[in-house]
Amino acid sequence: MSRVLVTGFGAYAEEADNPSGVIARRFDGQRIAGCDVFGRVLPVDTESVRGALANAIECSRPDVIVITGVAPGRTAPALERVAINVRDFPIPDTDGRTPIDEFVEPGAPAAYLSTLPVKAIVAGWRRAGIPGYVSNTAGTYLCNQTFYLARHLSRETSARVGMVHIPVVPSRAFEIGSPPPPSMSMDALEHAVSLAVSIAVQHDGADLRIGGGAIS
Amino acid sequence: MSRVLVTGFGAYAEEADNPSGVIARRFDGQRIAGCDVFGRVLPVDTESVRGALANAIECSRPDVIVITGVAPGRTAPALERVAINVRDFPIPDTDGRTPIDEFVEPGAPAAYLSTLPVKAIVAGWRRAGIPGYVSNTAGTYLCNQTFYLARHLSRETSARVGMVHIPVVPSRAFEIGSPPPPSMSMDALEHAVSLAVSIAVQHDGADLRIGGGAIS
Amino acid sequence: MSRVLVTGFGAYAEEADNPSGVIARRFDGQRIAGCDVFGRVLPVDTESVRGALANAIECSRPDVIVITGVAPGRTAPALERVAINVRDFPIPDTDGRTPIDEFVEPGAPAAYLSTLPVKAIVAGWRRAGIPGYVSNTAGTYLCNQTFYLARHLSRETSARVGMVHIPVVPSRAFEIGSPPPPSMSMDALEHAVSLAVSIAVQHDGADLRIGGGAIS
Amino acid sequence: MSRVLVTGFGAYAEEADNPSGVIARRFDGQRIAGCDVFGRVLPVDTESVRGALANAIECSRPDVIVITGVAPGRTAPALERVAINVRDFPIPDTDGRTPIDEFVEPGAPAAYLSTLPVKAIVAGWRRAGIPGYVSNTAGTYLCNQTFYLARHLSRETSARVGMVHIPVVPSRAFEIGSPPPPSMSMDALEHAVSLAVSIAVQHDGADLRIGGGAIS
Repeated sequence: MSRVLVTGFGAYAEEADNPSGVIARRFDGQRIAGCDVFGRVLPVDTESVRGALANAIECSRPDVIVITGVAPGRTAPALERVAINVRDFPIPDTDGRTPIDEFVEPGAPAAYLSTLPVKAIVAGWRRAGIPGYVSNTAGTYLCNQTFYLARHLSRETSARVGMVHIPVVPSRAFEIGSPPPPSMSMDALEHAVSLAVSIAVQHDGADLRIGGGAIS
Repeated sequence: MSRVLVTGFGAYAEEADNPSGVIARRFDGQRIAGCDVFGRVLPVDTESVRGALANAIECSRPDVIVITGVAPGRTAPALERVAINVRDFPIPDTDGRTPIDEFVEPGAPAAYLSTLPVKAIVAGWRRAGIPGYVSNTAGTYLCNQTFYLARHLSRETSARVGMVHIPVVPSRAFEIGSPPPPSMSMDALEHAVSLAVSIAVQHDGADLRIGGGAIS
Repeated sequence: MSRVLVTGFGAYAEEADNPSGVIARRFDGQRIAGCDVFGRVLPVDTESVRGALANAIECSRPDVIVITGVAPGRTAPALERVAINVRDFPIPDTDGRTPIDEFVEPGAPAAYLSTLPVKAIVAGWRRAGIPGYVSNTAGTYLCNQTFYLARHLSRETSARVGMVHIPVVPSRAFEIGSPPPPSMSMDALEHAVSLAVSIAVQHDGADLRIGGGAIS
Repeated sequence: MSRVLVTGFGAYAEEADNPSGVIARRFDGQRIAGCDVFGRVLPVDTESVRGALANAIECSRPDVIVITGVAPGRTAPALERVAINVRDFPIPDTDGRTPIDEFVEPGAPAAYLSTLPVKAIVAGWRRAGIPGYVSNTAGTYLCNQTFYLARHLSRETSARVGMVHIPVVPSRAFEIGSPPPPSMSMDALEHAVSLAVSIAVQHDGADLRIGGGAIS
C-alpha cells in the first residue's frame, strides 16, 4: 500500500464549514502509516460529484479510499457497511437538484459492500478510546452516492474503499437545536479518520469474509 | 396477480407472541384485492428459515411476497428499500447461532432492492391515516436475511417482493422499558400490511424506476 | 367522589384538531366510575387560560382534575409528576405571546407535585395492555402552566389533580416527519384517560407518600 | 463572591471512573474567576450523601455551588432548572438502597428552582463553542437528590446553587452500546463546568426573574 485518498465535502445547506472537508484539506499531503495521503474536497452536487471523484481517483491512484461526510444526529463516527444504488434526496443539493428514486448508476449493481476492514477499524477506535460503530445505511443522499461511486469507479482495482460518517462538531451542534444533537471535536474526528486510514492500510485482509473479491 | 405470500416470524427472545406471526396466521386463507393470501410463520433460525421460506414460495407460487417482522423502536410501519447479503446478528437466533460477518448467500449479489412500490404504499397508508415511511436498512438479523432470501429465491420470476418492519404492540411495549418504545395496535398493523398487499397487487409498475427489471 | 373535570386544549400551531380537546369534548357529560365528568376545552393562550380554567373549576367543583395535552415525541401516555412555576415558551401561544423565564404565579411555590396516584394509574394501564409511564417534566409551555394553575387554584381543596401528556394521533404523525414520531389512536388515548380518571376516583390514597397533604 | 463548591460523584454501577468526580478532584484548590474552588467527591449513597454534602458546604462556606453528575444519553452539558423533592430510584445506590416515591426532605418544599443564571451560562457556553442547554428535569435519582439538598441546606444563605448534568466520556460510551450514546471529552466537560462557575460568579443577578429571592 502506498497511496490513500480521503475525500470530504464542501459547504452545503447549514454546514458552512463542513468538517469532512476540513479533514480532507488537513490530510492532503500528509503521510499516514507510510502512505501518501491525497485529500480532496468534493462538491455537494449530484451531477458534478462523479467527475470530481473520478478525477481525484485518477490523480491519486489510491490503494485505499475513505469517503467522509457529516450526518447530523450520529453519536460517533460510523463505518458504513454498504452503499446502495439509490438517490432519493431529502433536501436539494447545492445546485437545487433533488433526485427522487433515481439510480446512482443505471445498470450497475443494487449495492456495493465496503471493502474496508470495518470491524478492525471499530476495534482500533475502541483501543484508542474513540467510540464508533458499524452502520448499515449511509442514507440516500450525496454521502451514499459518493461512497457508491467510489466503489463503482474502482471496482476493477484492488483498492479498499469505504466511508466514515461523522457527527457534527460542537460549534455547529448548538445552532441545530436545544437540546443539541450529539457532537465530537474536530480533533477527535481527525483522529478517528486517521486511525481508520492506518488500520485499513495495514490490515492483512484475512478476516474480511464480507467485503468481496476486491480484497484477496 | 392472483396469489400473495405474507410471512411473519414465530416466537423469539422476548417476543413470545410475535405480532408478525400473528399477522401471517390471520391473513392465511383470506382474499385481499382479489388475490388468495397464503400466510406463513417462519422460524427465527438462521439455518432453517431458508428451507421454510423456499417451501412457502413453492407452495404458493406468489405474485407478491411481503415479509413482515418486528423491529422494536420503530415508530410506525416501515417499507424496507433494500436487503443486503450480510448476516451480522446482534443476538442469537432460537437455536443459539450468532453468525458474524457472514453472507446470506455466498456468491450472490451484495444486495437486492425491494420490488414493491414502496412510495405508493407509503402514500396509500397516509391516505388511510396510517403513519409509515421508507426505511433504508432492514438491519443484519433474520428480518434482513429473510427479505434477502425472498428476493433471491424469486429472482427469476416476476414476483414483487418486499418487507414491512413493524413496531411492537402496546402490550409488549411496557415490558421493554419506561418510557416504553413506540407501539401500534395489532389492528393498525394488520390494516397497514393489508393495504401494502393490496397496493402492491394493484400497482401498474409505471413509476418503479428503482426496483429493477423484475417489474415490467 | 362525585365530580371530575377533564380538560384538553383547542387548536394551536399545527395541531388543528387537538386530540386532547377531542377527549375533553367526548368526556363532557359522561359518567366514569360513578362520577359526573365535565369536559372543558381550554385556549392555548397564556393569559386567558387562567380565567378559563378557574371558571371550569368553579362550575364543576371537581374532586378529581385531569389536565390533558399533546406532547409530540412521547411514545405513550405519561403521568406528569410535577408542575413547575416557570413559563419559558419554546413557541408562541395562539395570541403570539412567548413568555421567557417568567413565573406562572409570582410568589407561589416553585412547584406542585401531582396528587393523582400516578403509580397506580400506570399499573392500571399496564393491566389493560396500555403502555404508559411516569414523566418528571411537563415542559415549560402551556401544558405545564395549566397543570400548575390547576394545582394552585385548588390548593385549599381536597381535589386530586394531575396531568396526562399524550402522544400525537396517527393521522397527525405522518405530517410531522419521516420517520414519523410515535403515535397512538384516539381510541387508545381515550381509554387511557378514562382509566386514569376511574383509578384516581377509586384510589384510597393509602400509598400516596408523595403527593402531599391534599390527599389524606 | 469568593468561594465556590463544585461536587461530583464517586464510582457507581458501571461508572467506575465517574467523570463528575474527576472534575471535582481536578478543580479542588484551583482558582476560577478570582474565587477559591473547593472540589468534593460525594458518595452515590442516598443516606450518606446528605452528611457529606452538609460537611462540604460547612467547610467551604460557598457563594456558588455547582453540583455535577453524569447522565448517560445527554448530548451536551445541561443546566438543570429545578430540583424536586422526590426520590424514585431506577437503580439501587452503592449501598443497595432503592427508595421509591419517597421525599428527599419530608416537610420541605416540592421543589427548588436553580439560582444559577442558567440562560447566561448557556449563552456563555455557546460563545465558547460548547453546545449545552437548559434541562427541565434532573431525574429522581441521586443527582436530583443532591441538587435538592444543596438548595435546601443553603436556603437561608445568598449562595447561588445549581446543577450541571454531563454526558458520558468517549471511552465509556462504547462500552454502553452500539451505536454508542453521545459523549464529550473530559477536557470539554471540564471547560464547560469551569465556564459555568465563572459566569455564575460574575453574574450581576439582574435578569434572574426566575430563581427566587436568594439572588437580589
